[in-house]
Amino acid sequence: MTDMNRVWRLRKRPVGVIGDDILSFDKEAMPVPADGQFLFRLNYLSLDPTNRVWMSDMDQYMPPVAIGEAMRGVVCGTVVSSKHPDFAAGDVVSGLGSWSEYQLGSPPFLNKLGPLGGAAVADAFGLFAVVGPTAYFGLIDLGQPKAGETVVVSAAAGAVGSIVGQIAKLKGCRAVGLAGSAEKCAWLVNDLGFDAAINYKTEDVSAALKRACPKGIDIYFDNVGGDILDACLKQMNYKGRIPTCGLISQYNATDEVPGPKNYPMILMQRLKVEGFIVLDYANRYPEAVGALGEWLAKGQIKFRLDMQEGLENAVTTLRKLYTGENQGKLMLHVS
Amino acid sequence: MTDMNRVWRLRKRPVGVIGDDILSFDKEAMPVPADGQFLFRLNYLSLDPTNRVWMSDMDQYMPPVAIGEAMRGVVCGTVVSSKHPDFAAGDVVSGLGSWSEYQLGSPPFLNKLGPLGGAAVADAFGLFAVVGPTAYFGLIDLGQPKAGETVVVSAAAGAVGSIVGQIAKLKGCRAVGLAGSAEKCAWLVNDLGFDAAINYKTEDVSAALKRACPKGIDIYFDNVGGDILDACLKQMNYKGRIPTCGLISQYNATDEVPGPKNYPMILMQRLKVEGFIVLDYANRYPEAVGALGEWLAKGQIKFRLDMQEGLENAVTTLRKLYTGENQGKLMLHVS
Repeated sequence: MTDMNRVWRLRKRPVGVIGDDILSFDKEAMPVPADGQFLFRLNYLSLDPTNRVWMSDMDQYMPPVAIGEAMRGVVCGTVVSSKHPDFAAGDVVSGLGSWSEYQLGSPPFLNKLGPLGGAAVADAFGLFAVVGPTAYFGLIDLGQPKAGETVVVSAAAGAVGSIVGQIAKLKGCRAVGLAGSAEKCAWLVNDLGFDAAINYKTEDVSAALKRACPKGIDIYFDNVGGDILDACLKQMNYKGRIPTCGLISQYNATDEVPGPKNYPMILMQRLKVEGFIVLDYANRYPEAVGALGEWLAKGQIKFRLDMQEGLENAVTTLRKLYTGENQGKLMLHVS
Repeated sequence: MTDMNRVWRLRKRPVGVIGDDILSFDKEAMPVPADGQFLFRLNYLSLDPTNRVWMSDMDQYMPPVAIGEAMRGVVCGTVVSSKHPDFAAGDVVSGLGSWSEYQLGSPPFLNKLGPLGGAAVADAFGLFAVVGPTAYFGLIDLGQPKAGETVVVSAAAGAVGSIVGQIAKLKGCRAVGLAGSAEKCAWLVNDLGFDAAINYKTEDVSAALKRACPKGIDIYFDNVGGDILDACLKQMNYKGRIPTCGLISQYNATDEVPGPKNYPMILMQRLKVEGFIVLDYANRYPEAVGALGEWLAKGQIKFRLDMQEGLENAVTTLRKLYTGENQGKLMLHVS
């Protein structure tokens, strides 16, 4: 255990791509737990599209990270010392923390990870902390998939999208994914069992959707917004659902982003568009973790980590999310 | 009874404002009912924003009216002769017909109007055929208003909007309406009991909404789309609802209409945007007509007809809807 802590602090609001001057990586004094807190060391840092939202001052679902504040993140770590009666050194915890090697925590934001059910810590953290419940509640609760329906998901080779398509298959639906490379598309169809995949960077998305969804789209699980949303809106079936999980195509935008021009399809086809974030479902996590754990144990769901090394690489690694360079759940191994 | 019929037929798809050359008003032979049909004479023709949609070939919820076909409309008339066992001369019928003085009909598109419960035919047709059930199901079913919430409605001095605001008040909500003149705004507040009204033509809509909705917007009943939708999106509360009933601001557009730039608020505030048309609720009409009839009888809902004369004036009268010249339910008295 070193004497000094290492902390990423937000210095500026990003404009466009997250520049190297947006955060600083500082050496600081070790934090000391007060009564009711524990000190933990970061093992894994989850890197998520929403990190860019928290850095900005756009309208968002939590207060943005303040300038000078440690960057917020979804974290997994091991308790070093504790002044909280329910936590002891060695406990593995996860939840909402910061981009800091050592940090203080307490419930409700940090809780013990588990039960692991035989899974490795990184897998359990990667699947159960954010990704799995996001896919589960967005598709099942808002999407209401029925056997025989067609489910389209964008960012399908991403962490959430890859789980959405696999749950869609488990529910008897046709699963169609959009991804940004031939390799990702092949992975979706050959390894994950998607019925079709579309390379949105090289194909005419509208024409490809027509081929891949001969009966139209019943559920479009939206991770990206933008042009892909517009293309899907145009092919939605009567009473279709659009769970809105993310709008990553526009997080890095510097100019005002136009809205979807096919918005009138919401009226014409009587669609339901509904935004959600997984924190809204915090009290129902056990339901999702139970179902996902069972599918994982039976080999019915495959989950891939894109594990990178070193807290010092947090910013350069995060940037991969917005260019589509990652494949699977992007995470940093810290210690 | 004349020997010749008079029929408005669609000749061209409108571009922008509906020009005089889009429909022709023709003299034609009288139609003759086949078995299972009745012949009826048009008494009242409802003029509705959606008429412009039916004339166009934009994506829509029914097939557009074909070129050369009689213009589709919501009609009320009196049976002249019948070859349908359930209808006899003198019966008052209403439903989906055409812009024709005499026309053939049969269920399910045309049915007997009623029960009138003491209301005049024009009032019952105006309130119960389309307008009332639209307001009722959109607000109650999709909006799910709770006492103490704030409901904003656009085109509030229009037929549907004026009923939406009054039902919102009956449900214990704060009702705020947007309309296009000082006179309309005064009518909303002084005669209909709205808590506030905003003249969108002269006021800064965002600033006025902030003043009129100090606790934010829980339900935005959207009749217009466009800039007003964008302004409302920005002020929606967590888990707000946007029943989408119409997008009249863009029906006459000749250029591509941009989508709402504040679309990301759907995600950030976890909004539910849902399109509907009243035909989706055809099997629940009695519920709406029952509630509306009771409110009307008790004087708890006021309803205003904007009654114009003469089938020959159908096009010039319809155009008033898109400029906001009408006030209340726009209708033609034909015979």
